[in-house]
Amino acid sequence: VGDLRIAVDSMGGDRAPAVVVDGALSALTETSGDLEIALVGRQAEVRAVLASKSWPSARLTVVDAPDVIAMDEQPAATFRRKKQSSIAIGLRMQKEGKADGFISAGNTGAVTANAIFGLGRIRGVSRPAIATFAPTRGGPCIILDVGANVENKPEHLLQFGVMGSCYAEVALRKTAPRVGLLNVGEERTKGGDILTEAYDLLDGAGLNFIGNVEGRDIFRGDVEVVVCDGFVGNVILKFTESVVDMFYAVMREELTRDLRAKFGAALLKPAFRKLRETFDYAEYGGAPLLGVDGACMICHGGSSSLAIKNAILATRRFIKYDVNSAIEERLKQYG
Amino acid sequence: VGDLRIAVDSMGGDRAPAVVVDGALSALTETSGDLEIALVGRQAEVRAVLASKSWPSARLTVVDAPDVIAMDEQPAATFRRKKQSSIAIGLRMQKEGKADGFISAGNTGAVTANAIFGLGRIRGVSRPAIATFAPTRGGPCIILDVGANVENKPEHLLQFGVMGSCYAEVALRKTAPRVGLLNVGEERTKGGDILTEAYDLLDGAGLNFIGNVEGRDIFRGDVEVVVCDGFVGNVILKFTESVVDMFYAVMREELTRDLRAKFGAALLKPAFRKLRETFDYAEYGGAPLLGVDGACMICHGGSSSLAIKNAILATRRFIKYDVNSAIEERLKQYG
Repeated sequence: VGDLRIAVDSMGGDRAPAVVVDGALSALTETSGDLEIALVGRQAEVRAVLASKSWPSARLTVVDAPDVIAMDEQPAATFRRKKQSSIAIGLRMQKEGKADGFISAGNTGAVTANAIFGLGRIRGVSRPAIATFAPTRGGPCIILDVGANVENKPEHLLQFGVMGSCYAEVALRKTAPRVGLLNVGEERTKGGDILTEAYDLLDGAGLNFIGNVEGRDIFRGDVEVVVCDGFVGNVILKFTESVVDMFYAVMREELTRDLRAKFGAALLKPAFRKLRETFDYAEYGGAPLLGVDGACMICHGGSSSLAIKNAILATRRFIKYDVNSAIEERLKQYG
Repeated sequence: VGDLRIAVDSMGGDRAPAVVVDGALSALTETSGDLEIALVGRQAEVRAVLASKSWPSARLTVVDAPDVIAMDEQPAATFRRKKQSSIAIGLRMQKEGKADGFISAGNTGAVTANAIFGLGRIRGVSRPAIATFAPTRGGPCIILDVGANVENKPEHLLQFGVMGSCYAEVALRKTAPRVGLLNVGEERTKGGDILTEAYDLLDGAGLNFIGNVEGRDIFRGDVEVVVCDGFVGNVILKFTESVVDMFYAVMREELTRDLRAKFGAALLKPAFRKLRETFDYAEYGGAPLLGVDGACMICHGGSSSLAIKNAILATRRFIKYDVNSAIEERLKQYG
């Protein structure tokens, strides 16, 4: 494997460009010569952040992108109207052979739309899907789709299963990862026609398909890849995040209530750190948009520099292990 | 309001009949003369549990039900095949004027099917829905449907909004409770055709409809009633439960890791109790099946006697405040 260059959307995320630039520099510091980074964004703003830092200069370039896409802009329209945004330019670099991958903590819908239109799809994939990690008692598992689509047909769910399985082999280092279909019960016929048909397709796709799964199976660590409709996936992603946030909020309140609680909390610092690590998405890096003809990693808008760094490293693995060829190969066999 | 009699499925739940009987007796002890309870189940087993207890005898009867429905039995078939189950008999008592309400911690699908076929529906309701509580930073909110249905049309979602609003007025003691539609974004057109149409229907139904809501809005306490498809609702219910369980499991492990952690945990006992209370479904009692022509409360299979007691008291409020007439009245206006 030769050198890899990853284009980083420096304008995306709640605390861009500062946090993004920091994350990119840590990724460079932590890796040896085989990684290069292109910071894509408003040149003046990016250079202002860089001014006070030091970095391995041969491995970093700044690419100017005058347009910025806001977090609440209509995704589809941005592809037509903002050709000079950091998202459009960063993705285009792959088409032009100037980059091997792209990451962004910006507007998820805009990244998805720009990637699908700009990079195109892998042969055999009708609907690219966003795959995210969820914590479980047996280590992280992968859930997809969590938001690239709203309504899915059985064959889309089959493709999600194939893509998720290929990705899990690289990201979780598991051979024959267990694939489950998110449903409201174990029986094959649960959940309506679309899911029943998807069950049959997944069952015949040469995957390690274990059938329908529910919340408790997932968190017990019974499955590495969870397939679901993008609407359902997005709703549970946001629900889970919010439950965890609420948990922290109640704890924070209780742990500072009085002296006794404060003292107890101080003693439990290491325990709480472990808890945070288990539930913190930053540990896992970003969520790839699987199925596009390239590498596109989507990060949480609230990403820390640690999350950005981890996402860059995850993108590097994604490219190195050529997840896309594995997906295309398997879809050729079973699509 | 005269005397109320509630039929209690004594065979339903993981630790039936013991835990159910205990919960029923606490409900009797805690209330004055206006509540009566009929314990419905295998007479010998129920009487064996009662043997060692004392209770206000005039307010308790035992009704024999020789059949028992297992937790994993096919719901629809139980209505035809098990006419003498505790669920069938307990519900039938309402039709026969022998009870005003029913609660069960048994097979949810079987309770739902038996209640819909056995009690019938309120005029104007096409699909009854299960409404459950979720903890939020602003107190509990109501989510429905969480499992009575799999695929819903816009008019079903409208009915869920009306039923949830009427129930929230009683259960949460709120006037004009805020109603939101669970979606993947704020804009009116998010989530596909069914949700867009449901949005418009809910918007014109004379409810305090606040539009689309996501996880963070819900847990922040921005909404009292969350309307969703039964599939989505069931999935998030189970997901949320599992995340919370996993949180406890990780904490338990960390808090007993060494002496320091154990000491810290001891100091934080009150804080953890508060945390548990916030997330424990037992505090909130059961989940009513809204839309059936009667009162039917569904409890978690793992219900403690506290949860059973709270569910009985919640059923009593449901009947006393005549939630069903309010639903019928409002559907007549806006259906």
